[in-house]
Amino acid sequence: MLYIFLLAFLFFSTSSLSHGSVLDFCVADYMAPEGPAGYSCKKLANVTVDDFVFTGLGVPGNTSNIFKAAVTLAVDAQFPGVNGLGISMARLDLAIGGVVPLHIHSGASEVIIVEQGTILAGFISAAANTVYMKTLNKGDIMVFPQGLLHFEVNTGWNSAIIFASFSSANPGLQIVDLALFANDLPSELVVKTTFLDYLQVKKLKAVFGGTG
Amino acid sequence: MLYIFLLAFLFFSTSSLSHGSVLDFCVADYMAPEGPAGYSCKKLANVTVDDFVFTGLGVPGNTSNIFKAAVTLAVDAQFPGVNGLGISMARLDLAIGGVVPLHIHSGASEVIIVEQGTILAGFISAAANTVYMKTLNKGDIMVFPQGLLHFEVNTGWNSAIIFASFSSANPGLQIVDLALFANDLPSELVVKTTFLDYLQVKKLKAVFGGTG
Amino acid sequence: MLYIFLLAFLFFSTSSLSHGSVLDFCVADYMAPEGPAGYSCKKLANVTVDDFVFTGLGVPGNTSNIFKAAVTLAVDAQFPGVNGLGISMARLDLAIGGVVPLHIHSGASEVIIVEQGTILAGFISAAANTVYMKTLNKGDIMVFPQGLLHFEVNTGWNSAIIFASFSSANPGLQIVDLALFANDLPSELVVKTTFLDYLQVKKLKAVFGGTG
Amino acid sequence: MLYIFLLAFLFFSTSSLSHGSVLDFCVADYMAPEGPAGYSCKKLANVTVDDFVFTGLGVPGNTSNIFKAAVTLAVDAQFPGVNGLGISMARLDLAIGGVVPLHIHSGASEVIIVEQGTILAGFISAAANTVYMKTLNKGDIMVFPQGLLHFEVNTGWNSAIIFASFSSANPGLQIVDLALFANDLPSELVVKTTFLDYLQVKKLKAVFGGTG
Amino acid sequence: MLYIFLLAFLFFSTSSLSHGSVLDFCVADYMAPEGPAGYSCKKLANVTVDDFVFTGLGVPGNTSNIFKAAVTLAVDAQFPGVNGLGISMARLDLAIGGVVPLHIHSGASEVIIVEQGTILAGFISAAANTVYMKTLNKGDIMVFPQGLLHFEVNTGWNSAIIFASFSSANPGLQIVDLALFANDLPSELVVKTTFLDYLQVKKLKAVFGGTG
Amino acid sequence: MLYIFLLAFLFFSTSSLSHGSVLDFCVADYMAPEGPAGYSCKKLANVTVDDFVFTGLGVPGNTSNIFKAAVTLAVDAQFPGVNGLGISMARLDLAIGGVVPLHIHSGASEVIIVEQGTILAGFISAAANTVYMKTLNKGDIMVFPQGLLHFEVNTGWNSAIIFASFSSANPGLQIVDLALFANDLPSELVVKTTFLDYLQVKKLKAVFGGTG
Repeated sequence: MLYIFLLAFLFFSTSSLSHGSVLDFCVADYMAPEGPAGYSCKKLANVTVDDFVFTGLGVPGNTSNIFKAAVTLAVDAQFPGVNGLGISMARLDLAIGGVVPLHIHSGASEVIIVEQGTILAGFISAAANTVYMKTLNKGDIMVFPQGLLHFEVNTGWNSAIIFASFSSANPGLQIVDLALFANDLPSELVVKTTFLDYLQVKKLKAVFGGTG
Repeated sequence: MLYIFLLAFLFFSTSSLSHGSVLDFCVADYMAPEGPAGYSCKKLANVTVDDFVFTGLGVPGNTSNIFKAAVTLAVDAQFPGVNGLGISMARLDLAIGGVVPLHIHSGASEVIIVEQGTILAGFISAAANTVYMKTLNKGDIMVFPQGLLHFEVNTGWNSAIIFASFSSANPGLQIVDLALFANDLPSELVVKTTFLDYLQVKKLKAVFGGTG
Repeated sequence: MLYIFLLAFLFFSTSSLSHGSVLDFCVADYMAPEGPAGYSCKKLANVTVDDFVFTGLGVPGNTSNIFKAAVTLAVDAQFPGVNGLGISMARLDLAIGGVVPLHIHSGASEVIIVEQGTILAGFISAAANTVYMKTLNKGDIMVFPQGLLHFEVNTGWNSAIIFASFSSANPGLQIVDLALFANDLPSELVVKTTFLDYLQVKKLKAVFGGTG
Repeated sequence: MLYIFLLAFLFFSTSSLSHGSVLDFCVADYMAPEGPAGYSCKKLANVTVDDFVFTGLGVPGNTSNIFKAAVTLAVDAQFPGVNGLGISMARLDLAIGGVVPLHIHSGASEVIIVEQGTILAGFISAAANTVYMKTLNKGDIMVFPQGLLHFEVNTGWNSAIIFASFSSANPGLQIVDLALFANDLPSELVVKTTFLDYLQVKKLKAVFGGTG
Repeated sequence: MLYIFLLAFLFFSTSSLSHGSVLDFCVADYMAPEGPAGYSCKKLANVTVDDFVFTGLGVPGNTSNIFKAAVTLAVDAQFPGVNGLGISMARLDLAIGGVVPLHIHSGASEVIIVEQGTILAGFISAAANTVYMKTLNKGDIMVFPQGLLHFEVNTGWNSAIIFASFSSANPGLQIVDLALFANDLPSELVVKTTFLDYLQVKKLKAVFGGTG
Repeated sequence: MLYIFLLAFLFFSTSSLSHGSVLDFCVADYMAPEGPAGYSCKKLANVTVDDFVFTGLGVPGNTSNIFKAAVTLAVDAQFPGVNGLGISMARLDLAIGGVVPLHIHSGASEVIIVEQGTILAGFISAAANTVYMKTLNKGDIMVFPQGLLHFEVNTGWNSAIIFASFSSANPGLQIVDLALFANDLPSELVVKTTFLDYLQVKKLKAVFGGTG
């Protein structure tokens, strides 16, 4: 009886669902068009709790590479539940001597928390090229303002694990070395726009697989 | 003659319409994909003044329910013209003794204006659990900051009518009673996360149609 | 006893208030500096429920003017509780034959609801100068997209009352007649930038108190 | 060898592209749905440098019209690369005696830079109808706050060229004369909402091609 | 020699600092006024790396309370470097049987990562009161959309540690139990707005220290 | 007489100014506190048209430096009228062979227009390190998405002039060479985070005035 009364109360808000409204969230539908604000929303009927859960960050990344490091992303392209919510995560694994080289996230500020190990982390401000860096241990957190060059280096005696959170579902990731040396940007142009020596550029092009 | 001159001036801005640009508004197309910023836009050729007008708020809602209240929404799912414009409305009908129970709008701040009757309205701040509440009469307005628990109670001798405006086309509406007692959330879990007594939970599950 | 336990739990969130954090709202402090996002926040200790309540919209405005109309604002400059919340309101009184002349809100979309009377309301789109207008009666609502020219005319046999809501705490209000004819903008320049006749400009400058 | 290591490091960020993620930009796909935040994004594989380059602003507009002026737009509808990036441009050509009449951009602030000639530029504030205007010469820049009426007049002895930049990919453009006189808005209604004389309205309707 | 050339190039960008511009970040100055967008910015000369580092999350919270839980915040009120950057963090400690009871963050979406233990985490959607919940283990992450009721329960045999990240420097935290039972909200009003029994309300008021 | 009527109409909106409301703009007051959204607003009584006009971009910058280039900024720190308006400008002078080396604007997208000369301009996407570059001539425009590495090189036979517009009043400017080589970042750390050779780093530290 009360039940019927309740339904009457809810009539209007229920009807608001008739057009598939995404009242509370917008889980990414990877098959539909994307726009500047993110992916289109999956139909509510197809959304499950697994869209909001991601288990990949519990697994170590493969650090057998030149950086002795690995980045495992949990951003909108892998983790549909964060689409449109202004947040995402990543895991960084740094083997002994590993480094996440100088990079930028064009679309997000970042907070890191050290899960294991000892690292040196820092960013460089644009206003006066000031370096803000510090050695961080387990449980320490540090924030990198949006769009500034920053880095993490494993300075400890063991491998390090870091969890990073971003203020966007799609933070972007531009690594300076790869931007310069892992594509077909002509070496002369790299020299011109960086003042590096030509031989240095050719050497790093070889390391990172670039041409030109 | 001047006419031709005018056309020449407008050539470029007219051509800017050739791709169906949404220069001024984005009326909801309920058949196309939705994204985090709202519904896709209806083709300009199909937009009419009726997309920007909504007549449903002039009609009393049905208050024959346990709350002795009704909520009539004019948000983006019913009112296509507000899509993307950051504003929407609703009508609240409160019979004598009626209540809009504790609820939250996750996506909007709200201003209410009393159209008829006398109500007690309030919200609870999160910072210190302070209650801000006041008796409101015809013509009085009150603002509820985004995402805070609030309520309206008819404390007068007649039915009350309230118009609410929201700072989003899609404000969301989460009623605590329904979130707890109108779904399959296990009763033990409700007890665990609210400290309510088990019998209290079972009683209200019965009232609001929940299971578990 | 439980009490002490509770306090322990809250220790950190309480300490977060030690710097006067504006966790939930930012009531305007009219004595402190303003910024692009609004007024500075009043100290939490000085905030009362009256900051969130405004009673001025229950009072008819004085329509004894050339427009036979009155605008009563409840925006951030009068209503401190809406500061930073992205919403505000106004009351429009239109005597018989009254008009809110062509105007724009630079910073907000607007929804109006007719409280009393019959009006003709409309806006003009920029993309193709299309007019979207309709006669509205009690309870009808209409939305005007941000920054577009719009108007309300009392077309009924009685005075009309309208409540307007805005998608900003500071919507702005620019009335074309006053922008052109109520200041010292030289008449020749008005002619040049509007193609109005010089005598027409001088006539309206006299009406609206302009010079030049 | 290092090459393989590199690939291992990049495995995860590369996989993030598998769903067509718009990590860095969202070039407009004019064939797909639009939403409140702009056009859908073109598939990355189809994006070329030409999407980010626009050559139309190097060409003078045709000023053989009543305004002796031309507006050439480079906003999202013509220039797909700016979609979602919050910026766009336009070129204004003003023949001797030319004018960009009173107008508003509903969705953007604007900065102009004088490329050639001497102009008088100004805007009118809404708060007190104050006029802010100044004569500008080559290299001078001036900002017009969002949604306020403004104008440019060629006051020099030669034609003038101005480049305008907007704080939106879709700034909108509403010219008061065209909003009033270039559509079917009934002349009586124009009189009512502007206080212009009826004959003045009919005269300008004839000039700008309006009816009603 | 080159040095001088360099300085010439930098002359303008250096001069841009003369007004104390916050080019890259806005570290909170807790002594200056706050606004809707956050705290005022500390003078650049007083900013140090320690403003961007927070060490409190490495320390277990005190779980000797009714919830058997503790929340340690690293939001703008404690962690000045995140001010204005749209991100912050918290640590949750859950003793065996501990719970973070139903709560909302009015201003942020949240991602949690399990550092230790096994928990049941979930949120309730507003659109249809659907419960999305799942058991999470070390390394699992889950996202809670902004403004929706959610909870975490330690369902394992050991204490649990969770790190939470928020899409705002000031996420807010409203715990339903405290909002209802830890202040002076009259018990009759709690009954009226929640449908709880009067005795239940009185009992929990006693538990949580409320009056009324 | 009508005059009095008018004043009555305006009573409320005029009173809205009594608290110094920033209805239309927020000209920077360099002496008052700054916040995350920009500078505090100058009192309206002190605002003049010169706050909205900037004449410095008509003057060539001094290109007698290692880059054979100069950047002249017209952002909020120099140009108070753009504060809070989401737009700003700059002038780039490139002598023959001049270059604006690889750099990023952390807070803005950018559109450049070539005023004089021939340049090669380009940016590097983060998603796949793709280079988008093109030779631009007078009148051509190109957009660089926010936070991505980009450059301009004078490839013509004459000096080049470029005007740049930004989608923020405070775009930020981080030049990679200066971030790496013009501060006290230890050379070993530069080597570690960039894979450059130690001697290369020392050489460029000498060029750009860095230590460490």
